[in-house]
Amino acid sequence: MTDQAIPAEPAPFTVDDFAARLHRSAQAAEAAGLTGLLVTPGPDLIYLTGYAPVAITERITLLVVPVDGQPTMIVPRLERPDAEATPGAPAFGLVDWTDGNDPYEASAGLIGPGRYALSDSAWAMHLLALQGRLPDTSYVSMTTALPMLRAIKDEDELERLAAAAAAADAAYGEILGVRFTGRSETDIGTELAALLRRFGHSQVDFTVVGSGPNGASPHHEMGDRIIERGDMVVLDFGGLKHGYGSDTTRTVHVGEPSDEEREVHEVVCRAQQAGFEAVRPGVECQEVDRAARAVITEAGYGDYFIHRVGHGIGLTTHEPPYMVEGERQAMQPGMCFSIEPGVYLPERFGVRIEDIVTVTSVGGRRLNRTPHEMVIVE
Amino acid sequence: MTDQAIPAEPAPFTVDDFAARLHRSAQAAEAAGLTGLLVTPGPDLIYLTGYAPVAITERITLLVVPVDGQPTMIVPRLERPDAEATPGAPAFGLVDWTDGNDPYEASAGLIGPGRYALSDSAWAMHLLALQGRLPDTSYVSMTTALPMLRAIKDEDELERLAAAAAAADAAYGEILGVRFTGRSETDIGTELAALLRRFGHSQVDFTVVGSGPNGASPHHEMGDRIIERGDMVVLDFGGLKHGYGSDTTRTVHVGEPSDEEREVHEVVCRAQQAGFEAVRPGVECQEVDRAARAVITEAGYGDYFIHRVGHGIGLTTHEPPYMVEGERQAMQPGMCFSIEPGVYLPERFGVRIEDIVTVTSVGGRRLNRTPHEMVIVE
Repeated sequence: MTDQAIPAEPAPFTVDDFAARLHRSAQAAEAAGLTGLLVTPGPDLIYLTGYAPVAITERITLLVVPVDGQPTMIVPRLERPDAEATPGAPAFGLVDWTDGNDPYEASAGLIGPGRYALSDSAWAMHLLALQGRLPDTSYVSMTTALPMLRAIKDEDELERLAAAAAAADAAYGEILGVRFTGRSETDIGTELAALLRRFGHSQVDFTVVGSGPNGASPHHEMGDRIIERGDMVVLDFGGLKHGYGSDTTRTVHVGEPSDEEREVHEVVCRAQQAGFEAVRPGVECQEVDRAARAVITEAGYGDYFIHRVGHGIGLTTHEPPYMVEGERQAMQPGMCFSIEPGVYLPERFGVRIEDIVTVTSVGGRRLNRTPHEMVIVE
Repeated sequence: MTDQAIPAEPAPFTVDDFAARLHRSAQAAEAAGLTGLLVTPGPDLIYLTGYAPVAITERITLLVVPVDGQPTMIVPRLERPDAEATPGAPAFGLVDWTDGNDPYEASAGLIGPGRYALSDSAWAMHLLALQGRLPDTSYVSMTTALPMLRAIKDEDELERLAAAAAAADAAYGEILGVRFTGRSETDIGTELAALLRRFGHSQVDFTVVGSGPNGASPHHEMGDRIIERGDMVVLDFGGLKHGYGSDTTRTVHVGEPSDEEREVHEVVCRAQQAGFEAVRPGVECQEVDRAARAVITEAGYGDYFIHRVGHGIGLTTHEPPYMVEGERQAMQPGMCFSIEPGVYLPERFGVRIEDIVTVTSVGGRRLNRTPHEMVIVE
């Protein structure tokens, strides 16, 4: 896999793309009975404008998208040149505020009375300041009001997600060839991160290396533990390539596994397949969780599958739709999400298998292509 | 500077350190007339408990610190083992919530009626959900209610900040020896980031390389522009070492500068010195901004200094106290902040000079030690 050509950078999104997204978001807000959208730096802002400030800080940057009329973004004056240079800039108005003046007074001036959807990760500090100044305005989180804002990926986005998944697959292919025995989790994780970068990731968000008992903690990242023969090792890694996310898990074994280890791995494999087979347009997201969970419960490990089966992926590695009990949103073509059942036996070992899957008109399509079978590493 | 020994890792903070910080924060909340603190992942949580989840996601993690009684943290069940392993864990109670259940119901159960200070960067989504469930509870941002929570650094923190500054200085010393002419800003910035890592940074947050006209945009990070002879180049770089921030700016010139370039650089040097000399316990923070600004205004460049003169630094690279007009907080020994005046001539060039300074009983002490004089690079 080392020789595989790294495909060229995809064509950047254009002002027309951003204008269309802004228009669609205003329509969605209107359909939801909202007055508009309030968008702060992060994935919503990148989606709607292409703009990401150098850093997300205490200085407020806010895009106001009314259901009718021109969207306007307010930025700190010292970041104005960057905002002006963003590809989507011609599609919205731009104003700025200067250090020493009250940024919330200026921001509040752009927001009329009514009800707005606000980016999930907007800073509470900003929200509290706006609430104090605008008694006739109310707010609802973007995921509550417009969970599907970024959920349906278009062809250009799917191409990027497929490229990110292919890069993660390539990194996995390489890591299988390295020696695990006698090396620390951090050592393997650092190598995995370097591989993701080599295969085109601009950012690595996580490299979980959960060996032996550490694998039983799903979000254990990596540590000083030295990997030994006989260890099960959960490898869960991802980040951004061309701005879109990867997130893949495989569980390998150092040397020969026990019968119980084989059994648990096989149960998780079947659960992942059952979840995948539940993917179909019109079916509720929670059915994917139920299908995977049923396999694990029937095998007697239900108490050890302690998280939802998956989450959406796009400009971030965790976003709607969430594949979880209670999520009645229907799947639609173009949605992309993880299916990642796991079994975690406390203080012993864990197994998780995760692919990114997209919904097509007839069912699911995996973006990750590496086999699920347990690989024995050295 | 390549041969300088990298000092050993400082001794980690202990459960006693965290218990003392939790106790002090509860006292500060009581003195401010609050019911308690609500702390979400980020610098406040690291400060009070040592805990940082692998990623900050839509899954709520929340530490509730009442003015009297035991602090309690609620975490997603799958992250519980990590939370239990955190150094401060014995100092607070721990509960968890499981995917598919309502995390806000569980969180609200820990929060009594009253008024709470909430971490600045808490997600708006979480705040809106709590507001919906707790009609008798109100919230104020941490920076508004308790701006000084993390502002006074103790000896162990100052040691880390000094080590981070020394590493930034070492990186600057090295970059002066590389060739600038004919290379892109991104190329130089990538090298600077690698140097910061080589000198012990675990994380690089920004590497501004603003050459020629790009230097006139203070938050321009770096781009494809090829650096040429005759360019002024703003270098502003920082990140985290041992968990604490660095943030330094120097402005260099490629080949011989013009008289005007020399003059602007000299004005900014004098402004930085004037700001530094204004540092003294008991003096309002805004006086540092005023002192630096007066020099630039008198020299006729007042309209071109378009940002505050500085910001606090610690577990983050931007935190209170802010050195800005209107900030009447008195300086106190142990505070640490940047002093970074600049002059930005649109479409021509920019100059900024920045040191991290700490307040002592008698005045300021610079943590950065490299000279301010304009260095001519090749």
